Amino acid sequence: MSKGITSRKENYSQWYNDIVIKADLAENSGVRGSMVIKPYGYAIWEKIKEQLDKMFKETGHVNAYFPLFIPKSYFTKEASHVDGFAKECAIVTHYRLKTNQNGEIVVDENAKLEEELIVRPTSETIIWSTYKKWIHSYRDLPILINQWANVVRWEMRTRLFLRTSEFLWQEGHTAHATAEEAIAETKQMLNVYAEFAEKWMAMPVIKGSKSESERFAGALDTISIEAMMQDGKALQAGTSHFLGQNFAKAFDVKFTSKEGKEEFVWASSWGVSTRLMGALIMAHSDDKGLVLPPKLAPVKVVIVPIYKNEQQLEIIRKKVSEITDRLKDKNISFKFDDRTTYRPGHKFAEYELKGVPVRLAIGQRDIDNGTIELARRDTLEKKIYDIAGIEVVIENLLNDIQDNIYRKALKFRNENTYKVDTYEEFKDIIKNKGGFVMAHWDGTPETEAKIQEETKATIRNIPFDAPEEDGKCIITGKPSKRRVLFAKAY
Amino acid sequence: MSKGITSRKENYSQWYNDIVIKADLAENSGVRGSMVIKPYGYAIWEKIKEQLDKMFKETGHVNAYFPLFIPKSYFTKEASHVDGFAKECAIVTHYRLKTNQNGEIVVDENAKLEEELIVRPTSETIIWSTYKKWIHSYRDLPILINQWANVVRWEMRTRLFLRTSEFLWQEGHTAHATAEEAIAETKQMLNVYAEFAEKWMAMPVIKGSKSESERFAGALDTISIEAMMQDGKALQAGTSHFLGQNFAKAFDVKFTSKEGKEEFVWASSWGVSTRLMGALIMAHSDDKGLVLPPKLAPVKVVIVPIYKNEQQLEIIRKKVSEITDRLKDKNISFKFDDRTTYRPGHKFAEYELKGVPVRLAIGQRDIDNGTIELARRDTLEKKIYDIAGIEVVIENLLNDIQDNIYRKALKFRNENTYKVDTYEEFKDIIKNKGGFVMAHWDGTPETEAKIQEETKATIRNIPFDAPEEDGKCIITGKPSKRRVLFAKAY
Repeated sequence: MSKGITSRKENYSQWYNDIVIKADLAENSGVRGSMVIKPYGYAIWEKIKEQLDKMFKETGHVNAYFPLFIPKSYFTKEASHVDGFAKECAIVTHYRLKTNQNGEIVVDENAKLEEELIVRPTSETIIWSTYKKWIHSYRDLPILINQWANVVRWEMRTRLFLRTSEFLWQEGHTAHATAEEAIAETKQMLNVYAEFAEKWMAMPVIKGSKSESERFAGALDTISIEAMMQDGKALQAGTSHFLGQNFAKAFDVKFTSKEGKEEFVWASSWGVSTRLMGALIMAHSDDKGLVLPPKLAPVKVVIVPIYKNEQQLEIIRKKVSEITDRLKDKNISFKFDDRTTYRPGHKFAEYELKGVPVRLAIGQRDIDNGTIELARRDTLEKKIYDIAGIEVVIENLLNDIQDNIYRKALKFRNENTYKVDTYEEFKDIIKNKGGFVMAHWDGTPETEAKIQEETKATIRNIPFDAPEEDGKCIITGKPSKRRVLFAKAY
Repeated sequence: MSKGITSRKENYSQWYNDIVIKADLAENSGVRGSMVIKPYGYAIWEKIKEQLDKMFKETGHVNAYFPLFIPKSYFTKEASHVDGFAKECAIVTHYRLKTNQNGEIVVDENAKLEEELIVRPTSETIIWSTYKKWIHSYRDLPILINQWANVVRWEMRTRLFLRTSEFLWQEGHTAHATAEEAIAETKQMLNVYAEFAEKWMAMPVIKGSKSESERFAGALDTISIEAMMQDGKALQAGTSHFLGQNFAKAFDVKFTSKEGKEEFVWASSWGVSTRLMGALIMAHSDDKGLVLPPKLAPVKVVIVPIYKNEQQLEIIRKKVSEITDRLKDKNISFKFDDRTTYRPGHKFAEYELKGVPVRLAIGQRDIDNGTIELARRDTLEKKIYDIAGIEVVIENLLNDIQDNIYRKALKFRNENTYKVDTYEEFKDIIKNKGGFVMAHWDGTPETEAKIQEETKATIRNIPFDAPEEDGKCIITGKPSKRRVLFAKAY
């Protein structure tokens, strides 16, 4: 433990909060349920955005921007959609303040909107009301649009990154001529999310379909990626929805097919949010602070000088500039922390806390010997290397750290995933061990609800790669063809 | 004229609107005063963002994110600030909808907020309430933060990009130990904006101070860049504010100086918005459509095949792939438009409308001759070149187009800028010619108001580079030391 971080064992939830606060990622604001994303946290989010945006563009998508406010009447056009979101939305009712007789600033009742505006909790309705104007013929399809935006879902109990009233996200909204195409898009984007989670966040995920009761409000099918956190709980890290023709019907969006027939358009939508920051933190970090996969670290290498006086520091600066020139050539981001206001020990703790993957320390004696001390954040191992060629060592090490973090998370997940055939065992594991439980389920919402009520575990998804096998529901004993993934979840 | 664009001469305002709509940049939404930024318009905005973000980071700034909602009480802490923004804000009063007895979806009166939330029109108040927690000592300073965000200012009369209720922007908010540092920051960022406007948007700008009556609500000094549009009107393209200690005092943000004294913190803020899109369009475009400076064009080169049959198209495709490989090597973005659903003439008009800087057309005969036809969008000139080395021609031409567009805009501004010494002449120019008028002013808000009332011209700014000279106010005859810039403005 350093800088007063609670250990995971002692209090997992407090540990998480300590890391968010002490690694300078985010904090609560004076606005109920809204967070401030601090520069270091935002720099990680920028890395996430940059890579996802690249992957979206590589798969043919373009960005656009739609209004923040949604007229109430749009919102109510898709029945299950409004049911799903009506309870948690911020509503704009007025457009002016005024000074009253007592000199107080109050809402001007003369500036009441005729129709209330909902602050978008998601943009299907505003976007499909727009697509109606854009889509007439099969030549106008497909539309492959993504939006980076803020959304608001009123939350009573909030947690930094994991559940906040306002959060940042991307939402893809696509329109297609056929169901097959829309379904293929839905799957493609889940694969993009899974690839990003595994290769960039170093976080293994399980792809699968949500059960009916966990579907997005307005979707025919929701598929998700689910990751395991270090307390054994699941975190839904991304969802992709096949919306069928629901929104096209609600907004009367039709196209003329090649054959000259009028048909409703097919749709998908998909999104990931700043929640990924929470997943990233909880998947890898330890009791010393954040552990970042190098690919998402804003600074990959920090260099700390060890010196007795300004003269030594000057010599070190020169040597370091040779090293950083070579890091620049290799496009490896770095920071040389030559602040004189803090001692090396303080700096070491700070960068451990912030999860910088590689730390170099260099003093007069190192320079004399032509060596440098390197510490890797994931294992906390220290080793002495020659300064000559250190950039190659670092380049390889960064790949190694990326892989190691992934392997560690995968090993943890495997060790905490259980195949279970009785409800007794199920309850015991959920209650006493935590983790993922693969069990047979009869496919009914009733059984699902009963399990949730009694154990707080929910069906995370029905994994695509679960093998077909004959089994019996752990509750009702009815036949089941494949195991589904149960866990407690964030 | 093409595709039914109104000419500038006929109706400048309609011409602007036609370009925005027909070049697929943006459109009005069903939400009062809010626009939809379409993919092509958003791609240009992404180029703008990318370059500005780079320049902000090069000058030591980092990004962060603060809440969308601002409690009313924060808003009212800085008196002139609330005066400036109270009349144009969206107010959230409730957080839930419900279904009433008639089955209608209505606002749930039981979910009324105790304190109303203002949708941010700008973020000084929420940010300074946060800085209070971050700033204690001189070691915590400076804070150099920028935010990319959406903001809302309720507008009664809106125009796409130029004035919309919701718009996208960046807002820098910096905190400093001394007034000098904050003033230097304010100037530095105006210089960044000016450099961006001139080198990237190819739009000459005049830097100067706003008069007192045009200052940002809460600032001690506002400085701006002003550009001339093709109708002779001015458009304020960016502002930077020296906020003094106003917000620090309103939110009680103090720091302990090196000398151990407690002092209030000094501040700057600065911003540019999607309004720049309007400036970009109006500065350069012509009666055929958008004209884009190459540096901000999402696609720099479009290649249109001219073919009689699929066999010819196949031969052209092969030749084009040689050319595009060489464009890729030079990092020049391109699009090969081999759609068979449209004829070349249609494509030519479309890319003229969309302002693609360079258009190549290639047919069987060109391939036989080893040549290709190149048209540049800015001058509409066409010329035949050898295919060999065409990528070098294009590379040079793109620089040339960028320069040419800038020179053209500068020439236009020079030709439409007048030094005026009498009010008669002033009125005549403002009424009959339009353009910028440099005239002496006695420095009083009364004179400024009189001129605005009688001519609709306002003081755009007091240019930094206006030479000192003895003169007399055109209205009152009182002495003046330098001319100020008057114009009608967007």
